[in-house]
Amino acid sequence: MSSEVQHPYLMFLGDAPDQLAAKTAAGVAHWRPTWCLGQLRLDGCNADLGLPDMDLEAGREAGCKTLIVGVANRGGRFSPAWIDTFHRAIDLGYDIASGLHNRLTSVPGLAEKAMEAGKRLIDVRHPTQDFEVANGVKRSGKRLLPVGTDCSVGKMYTALALEQEMRARGMKADFRATGQTGIFIAGDGVSVDAVIADFISGSVEWLTPENDPDHWDVVEGQGSLFHASFAGVTTGLIHGAQPDALVLCHEPTRRHMRGLPTYPLPDIGLCMERNLQMAQLTNPDARFVGISVNTQALDASAARKLLGDLERQYKLPAVDPVREGVSSIVDALN
Amino acid sequence: MSSEVQHPYLMFLGDAPDQLAAKTAAGVAHWRPTWCLGQLRLDGCNADLGLPDMDLEAGREAGCKTLIVGVANRGGRFSPAWIDTFHRAIDLGYDIASGLHNRLTSVPGLAEKAMEAGKRLIDVRHPTQDFEVANGVKRSGKRLLPVGTDCSVGKMYTALALEQEMRARGMKADFRATGQTGIFIAGDGVSVDAVIADFISGSVEWLTPENDPDHWDVVEGQGSLFHASFAGVTTGLIHGAQPDALVLCHEPTRRHMRGLPTYPLPDIGLCMERNLQMAQLTNPDARFVGISVNTQALDASAARKLLGDLERQYKLPAVDPVREGVSSIVDALN
Repeated sequence: MSSEVQHPYLMFLGDAPDQLAAKTAAGVAHWRPTWCLGQLRLDGCNADLGLPDMDLEAGREAGCKTLIVGVANRGGRFSPAWIDTFHRAIDLGYDIASGLHNRLTSVPGLAEKAMEAGKRLIDVRHPTQDFEVANGVKRSGKRLLPVGTDCSVGKMYTALALEQEMRARGMKADFRATGQTGIFIAGDGVSVDAVIADFISGSVEWLTPENDPDHWDVVEGQGSLFHASFAGVTTGLIHGAQPDALVLCHEPTRRHMRGLPTYPLPDIGLCMERNLQMAQLTNPDARFVGISVNTQALDASAARKLLGDLERQYKLPAVDPVREGVSSIVDALN
Repeated sequence: MSSEVQHPYLMFLGDAPDQLAAKTAAGVAHWRPTWCLGQLRLDGCNADLGLPDMDLEAGREAGCKTLIVGVANRGGRFSPAWIDTFHRAIDLGYDIASGLHNRLTSVPGLAEKAMEAGKRLIDVRHPTQDFEVANGVKRSGKRLLPVGTDCSVGKMYTALALEQEMRARGMKADFRATGQTGIFIAGDGVSVDAVIADFISGSVEWLTPENDPDHWDVVEGQGSLFHASFAGVTTGLIHGAQPDALVLCHEPTRRHMRGLPTYPLPDIGLCMERNLQMAQLTNPDARFVGISVNTQALDASAARKLLGDLERQYKLPAVDPVREGVSSIVDALN
C-alpha cells in the first residue's frame, strides 16, 4: 500500500490544546488551501486553521474524501472522543490519514470496519510498502534537494516555495514528500525516516522516478549531515535523490543542533562542502544553486544584511522564502 | 525482545546445495568452535562444517540449547523438511535462531508452539526491540570500528581478529555484532541495516554502552560511505559508535562497488579522509590506526608489496588479518 491520500480533506483538529499542536494541519491548509474544505474541532480544541467548521456529515456534503489527522495528541493515545469520530468517519465513507506515531490500524475494530467498507486507513509515518535496494543508476529528469545546517530550518517550506515559483513560470515541477506533513501536502510520498535502513536510498529512487528531461522533482529534505541522530537518513536521502541542484537551508539564531545541547551548528561553507561531496557520489554534476534562510527572528534590516553577506561570501542567491520568495534561486537553475 | 542467542549451538545446514550457501554457519563455526557442538544436515545437503553430524536428539544430549539456521534457503521459502525439523526442535526444548529474511515467526503454528513451550524464535534480521533516537552524548570506554572501501571487504573478519588478539593480550575487548553472522558469533547484537532509519545511530549507542575506561568495543562495520545503496547505514553506524579508532578495510581486486557495476571503488586516502570527517562529528579524537586488506587473490609476494606500499603511503600498519594477523594494529592502539 502506498501513502496516496485522496483530496479534498476535512482537517481533524481533535482537542488540540494550542495552535502548535495543530502544526501539521496548519502546514497543509497553508500550502493546499483548495484541498482543505473544512476543520473538525472537538470540545476543548484551542487550535484554529481559519477554515469553516464542519462536522463529519457537513464535510461529506461538501465533498471531503479524507479525514486528515494532522494534530499532536496528548500522551500518545487516541482519546475516546477521537476513536468515536474515526468510527463514524468510516461509516460516512471517509478514508482516514494520520501523521501520528500511534497507528489508526491499532484502534480496536477500525481496520476491520474500514476493510468491510472499502475505505483506507493511511498511517503515513509507517510505510507498508516494500522498497528495493537503491541501484544508483542515473535517471532522466532533474532533481532539486534542500539540505540543512540542522533539522527544522525550513527545508520543506523552501521546497514548496520553489515548486510554487517554478509552476508559476510554467516549468514542470513536482514537490516530492519525505515526511508526514509533506505527504498530506503532496497527496503521496514516503516517510523516509520510517523506512528500514537498508532501503532509505531505494525508497527515494522510487519517489523520484525517471521523468521528462526538463522536469524538476523538488524533493523534501530531512535532517542534516551534521545531526548526530539523523545523518544516516540524510545521507541515504541525498544518494537516492541524485540531486542536480542543492539549496542550503539555515536558521541563524539556532544555538545548538536540535535536541543535542552539546553540538554546535556547522559553518555554512563547511556544511555546503560536505553535502556537495555526498551528492557527487551519485550525481557528479550536483551543485549548490542558493541559500534559504529563516530570518523570522531578525528585523528586516538585519535580515537583508545577513542575506547580502551570504550572497557575497558564497556567490549564490540567498533569500528568506517567506519575506521575499525564491525567484532568484529559480533564476539560478537556468 | 533482544537478539540474545543462547549457546551451545546445533548448526542447521538444511539441504544447502553447496558450501557457499552455508557461509553464515561456517563463519560461526570458525570463530566460535567451542559453541558449535554439531551440525544437522538433511538429505541433499552438500555443505560440511567439519563438525560431528547430529540429529536433534543427539544435539540435545550433547547440551545444545539453540538450533542455528545459518544457511541460505532455496527460493526464499522454508521447505517442508525444514518446517518439520523446526517443530521437532521446539518439542525437544531448543530455541531456534535464524538469519534468513523470511521469518521463523511466520511458519504456521511455530510461534504458538514456542510460546507454550517457553522457547524463543529469534529472527536476527528483524529486530523487534524499540530503540531510542541517538543522543550523541560521549560514553566512557573506547570503541574501534572497521570501515570499508566497499561492502564485503573483510570488516567483520577484521573486527573478530582484533577482538581475539586484544583478548590474547589480556585487554578488555568485546566484539559488537551489527549483522546476522556476527550476532550468532557474539551471541547478541543488532542487525543495524534492518532498524528503522530514524534509529540507526540510537541502536548502535545501545549496542556499545558506557564501559570501563580501558575497555574496547570492537564494532562490526557495515557497508561503505561510498556505496550508493547503503551509505546511510554506514553513516548512522559511524555516528552511533563514536569510534576512537578506525581501521580501513579493502579488497584490492574488486573492479566496482558491489552490486553497482558503474561505480568505481574510491581511492583509499579519500575514503579514509571522508570516514574520519564523519567520525569526528561525534568523536573529535577519532583517528585511523591501521589498514586491513583481503589479499586472498594475490600471491604472497604481491601481497607483501601491496601492504608495504600502503604502510609507506599512509604511515599506518597495513595487514592481511588472515595471512599474518592484526597484532601491528593492536600495537598502534597504545
